[in-house]
Amino acid sequence: MTTEAGTEAADALARRVAEAMCEQDQASRGLGIHLEAVGAGWARMSMRVTGAMLNGHHVCHGGYIFSLADSAMAFASNGRNRASVAQFCSITFLRPGQLGHLLLAEAREQAEAGRTGMYAVEVREENGEVVALFSGAVRRLGDRTVV
Amino acid sequence: MTTEAGTEAADALARRVAEAMCEQDQASRGLGIHLEAVGAGWARMSMRVTGAMLNGHHVCHGGYIFSLADSAMAFASNGRNRASVAQFCSITFLRPGQLGHLLLAEAREQAEAGRTGMYAVEVREENGEVVALFSGAVRRLGDRTVV
Amino acid sequence: MTTEAGTEAADALARRVAEAMCEQDQASRGLGIHLEAVGAGWARMSMRVTGAMLNGHHVCHGGYIFSLADSAMAFASNGRNRASVAQFCSITFLRPGQLGHLLLAEAREQAEAGRTGMYAVEVREENGEVVALFSGAVRRLGDRTVV
Amino acid sequence: MTTEAGTEAADALARRVAEAMCEQDQASRGLGIHLEAVGAGWARMSMRVTGAMLNGHHVCHGGYIFSLADSAMAFASNGRNRASVAQFCSITFLRPGQLGHLLLAEAREQAEAGRTGMYAVEVREENGEVVALFSGAVRRLGDRTVV
Repeated sequence: MTTEAGTEAADALARRVAEAMCEQDQASRGLGIHLEAVGAGWARMSMRVTGAMLNGHHVCHGGYIFSLADSAMAFASNGRNRASVAQFCSITFLRPGQLGHLLLAEAREQAEAGRTGMYAVEVREENGEVVALFSGAVRRLGDRTVV
Repeated sequence: MTTEAGTEAADALARRVAEAMCEQDQASRGLGIHLEAVGAGWARMSMRVTGAMLNGHHVCHGGYIFSLADSAMAFASNGRNRASVAQFCSITFLRPGQLGHLLLAEAREQAEAGRTGMYAVEVREENGEVVALFSGAVRRLGDRTVV
Repeated sequence: MTTEAGTEAADALARRVAEAMCEQDQASRGLGIHLEAVGAGWARMSMRVTGAMLNGHHVCHGGYIFSLADSAMAFASNGRNRASVAQFCSITFLRPGQLGHLLLAEAREQAEAGRTGMYAVEVREENGEVVALFSGAVRRLGDRTVV
Repeated sequence: MTTEAGTEAADALARRVAEAMCEQDQASRGLGIHLEAVGAGWARMSMRVTGAMLNGHHVCHGGYIFSLADSAMAFASNGRNRASVAQFCSITFLRPGQLGHLLLAEAREQAEAGRTGMYAVEVREENGEVVALFSGAVRRLGDRTVV
């Protein structure tokens, strides 16, 4: 989407921003969310469903699945070192998150217009089955994410 | 919306279902979400923003705010003792959740058609300012939520 | 939501803006959408389902129902004479729009933060049954809608 | 996503279904929407912005852009000859549709679970700039779209 996407310099910047974010982002860590890989305009994160995440229907509370997708968007959208915050998100839950299963979220940049950036996130089981689809818009704040 | 909405019997059923859900819903408890009040087709829940909930921008991770809204919808939508699960949700983040602040979510039933129920949730600060607006569709599973 | 909401002056302004918009808005007119009533922060519009609006399933094309809701949001959101354009919208279709039926859309302001305004729109049959629920965010452009 | 995706037989079926839909779908035709190409699980449609589509801000009414995206999803989702109707849609408007411009919508299947199918639609200018991003869920009705 941008000429720098996928270049080595842009990917290296995305990794430096992600390192700084990981240190400060207590929430993602507390939710059991791990960064697997990151590059310019994309990020892949994982979360294992634990007993503490189960709702009254004995499956993963949707809030954890949303959090995983939202975190993946945060790493993908801040990776160019422009501070970006979620503004509008929609999520469709297609399959329940089962106890003990590892969920993988992959976020990728779709479009950019003005100060709005658009991201699609797929949350999948390890076997590839789609658990949830997430679509999000972030707003660029005009600051750097890290110095 | 339904003739029983707001009747004493329907409200009492909603409270019995909520009690049973609270015992089994480890996730909401672990996320620091508390049930404040519940009735037929509505629920009010609260969550205080703690340090553990802060993201890399030093404000509440959007996942916690979504979880609060989603939990409120869960209690509102299961209150007639028909097992109901979130299927489509959208959320708009209007103001950041600040450390130490108490957030209040109020969910109310909007419409019903076939096996789909629609809910609107407002997440507000104690001073009434809107933090996020959430809209969700649940699917009725055909089972009772509690025996 | 604002202190002026519902005051006579604000309602009169909303009606003046709506008159000017009606003259310029060829699209709503061409889609068969009529303004029924408007005030500060709200608008009510109607559309009768004609044969030309039917899709391959012989019910009203969802695009017409979205257009009706979107137009109602446009009149509600421009009524304070601040040019406002739709940015994010979600819609849930609950019942089909049947040939010959009159659909009514009621838009109301839900919240305001920065340059974002939030609106909820309900599309109903004349008998009150909900056909679709729409949620939209507009962005304030900083211009007046009419001089 | 399915083993038949992209096979010649599945693509031919999608084209036969599309032909039958085109005959019956007065709405898309009336809205100036044309089918460009279709295959198993995807469709590409176009619409030129005319004067009749302009709203009070002198750009294409969002309802027409939604209709274009929704029509593309309809052709993509009915192409396996399983009657499918839109249930939940979200759209983000990124750039205005300008008078005289040709807009292109490309819908593609993302996931399937139970009777729910998920579709992503991108609406672009001829120069490739994204005008709107659309995400939709359809419900499979259990009937054939065409005999």
